[in-house]
Amino acid sequence: MPSTRRNVTSVAIRLNQERGSFWLVDCGEGTQQQMLSSPLKPRQLEKLFITHLHGDHLFGLPGLLGSRAFQGGQTPLVIYGPKGLSEFVETTLRVSDTHLTYDIEVCEIDEGIVFEDDQFVVSSRKLSHGVLSFGYRFEESPSAGRLNTEKLAQEGIAEGPIYGQLKKGHDVALPDGRVLSAEDYVSAPIPGRKIVILGDTTPCEAVTQLAAGADVLVHEATYAAFDSDKARAHHHSTAVDAATAARDAGVGALILTHVSARYDEVGLAHLLDDAQTVFPNTFLATDHWSIAVPRSGTIHAPIGPPPSSA
Amino acid sequence: MPSTRRNVTSVAIRLNQERGSFWLVDCGEGTQQQMLSSPLKPRQLEKLFITHLHGDHLFGLPGLLGSRAFQGGQTPLVIYGPKGLSEFVETTLRVSDTHLTYDIEVCEIDEGIVFEDDQFVVSSRKLSHGVLSFGYRFEESPSAGRLNTEKLAQEGIAEGPIYGQLKKGHDVALPDGRVLSAEDYVSAPIPGRKIVILGDTTPCEAVTQLAAGADVLVHEATYAAFDSDKARAHHHSTAVDAATAARDAGVGALILTHVSARYDEVGLAHLLDDAQTVFPNTFLATDHWSIAVPRSGTIHAPIGPPPSSA
Repeated sequence: MPSTRRNVTSVAIRLNQERGSFWLVDCGEGTQQQMLSSPLKPRQLEKLFITHLHGDHLFGLPGLLGSRAFQGGQTPLVIYGPKGLSEFVETTLRVSDTHLTYDIEVCEIDEGIVFEDDQFVVSSRKLSHGVLSFGYRFEESPSAGRLNTEKLAQEGIAEGPIYGQLKKGHDVALPDGRVLSAEDYVSAPIPGRKIVILGDTTPCEAVTQLAAGADVLVHEATYAAFDSDKARAHHHSTAVDAATAARDAGVGALILTHVSARYDEVGLAHLLDDAQTVFPNTFLATDHWSIAVPRSGTIHAPIGPPPSSA
Repeated sequence: MPSTRRNVTSVAIRLNQERGSFWLVDCGEGTQQQMLSSPLKPRQLEKLFITHLHGDHLFGLPGLLGSRAFQGGQTPLVIYGPKGLSEFVETTLRVSDTHLTYDIEVCEIDEGIVFEDDQFVVSSRKLSHGVLSFGYRFEESPSAGRLNTEKLAQEGIAEGPIYGQLKKGHDVALPDGRVLSAEDYVSAPIPGRKIVILGDTTPCEAVTQLAAGADVLVHEATYAAFDSDKARAHHHSTAVDAATAARDAGVGALILTHVSARYDEVGLAHLLDDAQTVFPNTFLATDHWSIAVPRSGTIHAPIGPPPSSA
């Protein structure tokens, strides 16, 4: 349930440099309102991934789709999620007489690769939540290694087509007889970033498998550790469950979200503290909180304050 | 569309003294979140009247129903609205696996009396909005006239069962031979309050007929008078349209709502001013704004500030 301090679930992945767009994972009621005091514009939304069909992850979807049309969105939108999503979207738009100005495609997914292009591979695993609930892994393609231009300059090789050939991994024969081996001038490919965002789940092997080696794991922490009986009864995780999964999966950073409104400020501090005991590099997300995920290196602190709200 | 200053539509009628509950007219996305910083508790919601099925009046409904269950609501809930409402409610609750802890009844209505009991008659009229859109008239039953206890005391008639008989309108013969005529001691019945809340509409006769003699008319004013071409094109009203209807219907007070996010503070002031030129006793509702509707007498000012928000 929403509270005055925390709205229901939605997580954005901003891909400004990569694609000039953003993706959304889940869309609880009020997501479009939250977006109004964020840098995100509905028309820049490119893909939407729904983890599961519980209302706190879903009920903001028809309103967001409608407002995207009102605001002049014209580019196609693809929505991924569990079986039942098509019926939900079709019924809510038809009954409300909502006419979109853009094409939507609803893909009811199963485990495996959900989407793939030159920049990203998105794959999914089934979690354990009573209803069908997916986790998504967003894996960026590696980028070409860095060309050592200092070394080339020192060796008297001027900038030009040769640089491009080397960067592509091709060896180059010079007019003076020297042969430049690409691997001497280009570093190893830079691994892409790996972000894993889960739907609601109780601890299960799929979590650690999906999250293996990720830079960032966004994991629900509905309950504090001392409420683990409630967590089990409702197919949820505690903060310590999340931290244990993060440790076992060897991720770079853990972000806790989906915390029950039952915990006050002190309760939240304890909840985070318990998780950090198991996995130190843990953060507790709040509404409008954001982090930058660097291409290499670990996240050691949230980057920047939340965007100023109106 | 919502803005940072104004959410989409929902109007509550608080019946604390009458029934210990409240009714809601429309339930746009984020209504349950707005309720969190209001005195209203979902479990006290007794009836919900949907004017039409456009998303800005409807998409908060499934979330509110779910949260009412989470918060322990157990009393039945009746939801009135146009054809299509049942399918919307059934599909959104089923797909999202939302299990309610109370009974709901969805009544797809037509023009005429929607609900009636000892305290209230609720009736509806079809408006003109491109899709089926209703206005609702909430009419309170008259209450018994006031017993003139001062006069009775002056005439030496002591408090007792005689007072009750007179108040019920029965004449009473005293042991000393006097006959008390009820009409000499009881004032005329006090008329009940009449509140009319409309769905979106372009000007039409049904508005003035439904609103005739109401104490309060809540009327959409999507556009300012100078945007009347846009209002016509989109089956909406201007603030001056609303004021004209209020004047023609002879209502006590007009409350404008559903104002487009396109108008800034200055624009809103002009919009209100234009309406007041036609119908002086006009108010512009803002989020969390509330008025008390007295049993007799006209509303001359909003009563009290909005409830303090968190």
